[in-house]
Amino acid sequence: MLQINPQRLLDDINTLSTYTEPDTPGWTRRFPSAAYVRGRQWLRERMEHAGLRTWQDAAGNLFGQRDGTHKLSPIYAGSHTDTVMGGGRYDGILGVLGALESARAIREAGITLRHPFVMADYLAEEATDYGIACMGSMIACTHDFKADWLTRKVGDITLREAIAQMGGQPDNMHQSLLKTGDVAASLELHIEQGPVLEAHDMRLAAVSGIVGIRRAIFELSGKSNHAGATPMALRKDPIAALGQMIVAVEAIAKRHARNGHGAVGTIGKIEVKPNQGNVIANHVLSIPELRSLDMAELDAMWAEFMALAQQACDGRGVAVQLFNETRLQSVIPPQWLHEMVLGVCQRLTPNTIVTPSGAGHDTNYLALIAPACMIFVPSVDGRSHAPEEHTAPEDLALGVQALAESIVAVDQCN
Amino acid sequence: MLQINPQRLLDDINTLSTYTEPDTPGWTRRFPSAAYVRGRQWLRERMEHAGLRTWQDAAGNLFGQRDGTHKLSPIYAGSHTDTVMGGGRYDGILGVLGALESARAIREAGITLRHPFVMADYLAEEATDYGIACMGSMIACTHDFKADWLTRKVGDITLREAIAQMGGQPDNMHQSLLKTGDVAASLELHIEQGPVLEAHDMRLAAVSGIVGIRRAIFELSGKSNHAGATPMALRKDPIAALGQMIVAVEAIAKRHARNGHGAVGTIGKIEVKPNQGNVIANHVLSIPELRSLDMAELDAMWAEFMALAQQACDGRGVAVQLFNETRLQSVIPPQWLHEMVLGVCQRLTPNTIVTPSGAGHDTNYLALIAPACMIFVPSVDGRSHAPEEHTAPEDLALGVQALAESIVAVDQCN
Repeated sequence: MLQINPQRLLDDINTLSTYTEPDTPGWTRRFPSAAYVRGRQWLRERMEHAGLRTWQDAAGNLFGQRDGTHKLSPIYAGSHTDTVMGGGRYDGILGVLGALESARAIREAGITLRHPFVMADYLAEEATDYGIACMGSMIACTHDFKADWLTRKVGDITLREAIAQMGGQPDNMHQSLLKTGDVAASLELHIEQGPVLEAHDMRLAAVSGIVGIRRAIFELSGKSNHAGATPMALRKDPIAALGQMIVAVEAIAKRHARNGHGAVGTIGKIEVKPNQGNVIANHVLSIPELRSLDMAELDAMWAEFMALAQQACDGRGVAVQLFNETRLQSVIPPQWLHEMVLGVCQRLTPNTIVTPSGAGHDTNYLALIAPACMIFVPSVDGRSHAPEEHTAPEDLALGVQALAESIVAVDQCN
Repeated sequence: MLQINPQRLLDDINTLSTYTEPDTPGWTRRFPSAAYVRGRQWLRERMEHAGLRTWQDAAGNLFGQRDGTHKLSPIYAGSHTDTVMGGGRYDGILGVLGALESARAIREAGITLRHPFVMADYLAEEATDYGIACMGSMIACTHDFKADWLTRKVGDITLREAIAQMGGQPDNMHQSLLKTGDVAASLELHIEQGPVLEAHDMRLAAVSGIVGIRRAIFELSGKSNHAGATPMALRKDPIAALGQMIVAVEAIAKRHARNGHGAVGTIGKIEVKPNQGNVIANHVLSIPELRSLDMAELDAMWAEFMALAQQACDGRGVAVQLFNETRLQSVIPPQWLHEMVLGVCQRLTPNTIVTPSGAGHDTNYLALIAPACMIFVPSVDGRSHAPEEHTAPEDLALGVQALAESIVAVDQCN
């Protein structure tokens, strides 16, 4: 019988959390710090100790393999061990140490897998100071990484040097590329980083996908004038236009949220010039974004928002310019894989939910080359990217149990 | 026949504009700079040359008097010669040099006034670095100035030293106080500083009053969360509440603007924390304001706004705190004085309008102790407090002609 060891898991989490950078808030382990290097050295030893054959690819990703009985593509499970500045002890880490614990539990249960099993610690998932996020999984799954990024510098260290420092081979990174078929399936256990599971009293989620994003930087240009001396009819007030845009983002997202595709909409950034109480603004920068799992819905939401934003600006003589308009594709697991993971979760607890991920993950890239699915456990108070990030120990263990059983289930399936 | 001399007026304006601070933008003459002192020395000589008896009161206001034939309270006309940093050549200055030209023109026309006539250059109307606006007229008309303000320092200079530097007697300022009855009427010619006259192709305005203001600093507190991972129903988003407030301010002001009391509403300042595109904000600071000539209307507008703002916050779990809530009374000239000034303007040009002032002036304080009325001339493109501030020479002259004739009309009236 497959049974993970909760205490061993918690011990690993606590031990890895001791590898943090001095003089930083929370539990900080940034790319390419000494703490990150030493944390991965410890991890690699733990992987070897668990009987996994370990290696790093040219991108600096750390892998550990247990061979299977058949000549099949491997099943991958993993996440990342780097953190944001002032981060917590679970984001990413649970997915890596959970994959390690799964490998141990599968071995201890005397289960022999048909597929090779590979656990992965993808390099630098969190956005680095070099301006790149999900670097390791991006390099492993796409041609998106541009060679000239290697010359970017943070302090005295080029990105080339930083990747080498982490054990990668920056000039051979094309060798890391995984192609469709190379991976039988990819699983990622992660904390939710949101409040949904807790709000519904749920303990596991078979994640229905990762939402797509549409976003742009809006620059609104009006005309500064005296707030008292300028009648309403003679104004070109970009803040008034922004007000309509804020209301539109929220209204569109709320209406579409009812469709169950995780639709959300946010304006989190506003910059105003000259930003004085008694002066009509002449310049506003803002970054509205909309998200949904359903790209057709998302495109419709964005079109509706764009029309309302244009109308809000046109009606006030405010000029609008868009920069960095982005459209990130949503990720949806194949139905067979999602149903399998959902079945495992439901057998473990009736408190299982199906919900999308609103945040991006390494799975965004793995999904480009393999069937990929995520499992969530609750985040207390929805907090993440903060030292207060917390998940109850029994939920951590339940998540890892679900991951381990999903690996076995996938192995039996194809 | 009373006829002002346009060239002499323009020459004075041009000459005074040469007294500006080195290494400052535009036409800067700040309290208590050497340029401001020297500009007033030149002005005082011009006043003496025009046959006016000159003096400074303890507050540092500069006056010039021509005696009348009867033992009556004087008629005052004046404004200020200080500017904002990077200001223009007309704001305030036109009212002072226009009063001087009026005195000359009245004398040259052989007109003997029954009342004494006093022209005034009130000290430091623009908000100073000491945090006080309309300082000279405030001290002359109210007890609002607090003695302990004299110890405020800008650089090495206390306000006491600064007032003394400008020719005032900071420890005798109570002697400057004008009481009701001391001034028969107060007139102030000023550039509009807004776009109304130009938009309606008007050349003169008999100002119907100075709008009242209601304003407060709003601090909205919500909860920061991941913009993707937090469903709409589980947010406490202060920017979403702000959006409703922006829309409410504009809608209320637009609706009331139709009543003709100069109602306007503005949010010109927004500060957001943490102010990141993909993070729901937890803190917003903003300063909504509403203005109207009619205080009952203004109070109703503010009450409606407050109810909508409270609803916008309550409906989103956003806490709201108010700071520095202010209610500035509007100023309305007595009907007899306004009708007299309006009659003068209409005789001079059919392009005369009645419109309120949306900005504050020295007249706000003079109106507390005397019948007070303002005359506006157009501001090209509505610009003011900027080097581009401009009024056509023929409109400057027409405004001064209206001022001079208004002085004579008031003199004949009571």
